[in-house]
Amino acid sequence: MASIERKHVGKRLSEVVIHGDTIYLAGMVASTPVPDDPGEQTRDILAQIDRHLEEAGSDRSRILMATIWLADIAYYDAMNAVWDPWVAPGHAPARACVEARLAQPKYKVEIRVVAAR
Amino acid sequence: MASIERKHVGKRLSEVVIHGDTIYLAGMVASTPVPDDPGEQTRDILAQIDRHLEEAGSDRSRILMATIWLADIAYYDAMNAVWDPWVAPGHAPARACVEARLAQPKYKVEIRVVAAR
Amino acid sequence: MASIERKHVGKRLSEVVIHGDTIYLAGMVASTPVPDDPGEQTRDILAQIDRHLEEAGSDRSRILMATIWLADIAYYDAMNAVWDPWVAPGHAPARACVEARLAQPKYKVEIRVVAAR
Repeated sequence: MASIERKHVGKRLSEVVIHGDTIYLAGMVASTPVPDDPGEQTRDILAQIDRHLEEAGSDRSRILMATIWLADIAYYDAMNAVWDPWVAPGHAPARACVEARLAQPKYKVEIRVVAAR
Repeated sequence: MASIERKHVGKRLSEVVIHGDTIYLAGMVASTPVPDDPGEQTRDILAQIDRHLEEAGSDRSRILMATIWLADIAYYDAMNAVWDPWVAPGHAPARACVEARLAQPKYKVEIRVVAAR
Repeated sequence: MASIERKHVGKRLSEVVIHGDTIYLAGMVASTPVPDDPGEQTRDILAQIDRHLEEAGSDRSRILMATIWLADIAYYDAMNAVWDPWVAPGHAPARACVEARLAQPKYKVEIRVVAAR
């Protein structure tokens, strides 16, 4: 049986959960959400994902699946303008992007990834 | 190749799918949805998740990832008031929670988990 | 460590990502979206999923988890009318289906699956 390792563990959620060689990250929102700027919020989120993946012994070239929620689907292009150049060339994950209201109105983007160690 | 085991199999979905040592549960809604009470619906759902995980040889301390859909994001605090004390201390899963209209208006909360055997 | 194999790799996403014996497909929308026909769009999507799974050395009887987003939850019955007979009898996946606005208004349905090789 594969071991489970958790990092940044709270009472509600863990930011990182590692099971065998699969890494599950929590849905990430901007740590400092620039108001009404989905592009900058995406940049903030992707930097957090980079840090969490590094901590878990992985990196963005090993992301398997990404789910992106936009508070307004109109943010699609602004998010992608930051997402596309961030993706490791040749290693893009399977991705889905849909609209959903998020936990607080200040958050315009939420991203969750599953990656390989 | 890892085996696949399914439990509570319908024509539309299976409630539980086990692949190797990873357990996928269907998105669960309340079996007896208390009208307009997202907290009680959460309690109902989490009890079902406990039962399904036990049946699959796991438990809430081994949940890897959880996705929570709320029919109205305003239910966030009511859901968390039940979720937080339910989580196995030190074993919180990676979690995302967003708003989405669900299959029927009587359902206010839907929760899906992936767990380890 | 399990290898990662990607197919139909773009700068934004890969349609298929295989990690060990787990296959992650991107969220699929209709390749030729019949206007305002969620049933036909579902048929289009499921045919794409069949092709991608075959290419990855799998098939619909080995789907572990499915997420279905409907642009309007009112499409629930029309989608299921195509989904239910498509499912491999006795091998239904864990499934969740919620409403979400999708990347473009012409898309009424989006489906993402995780399968076993």
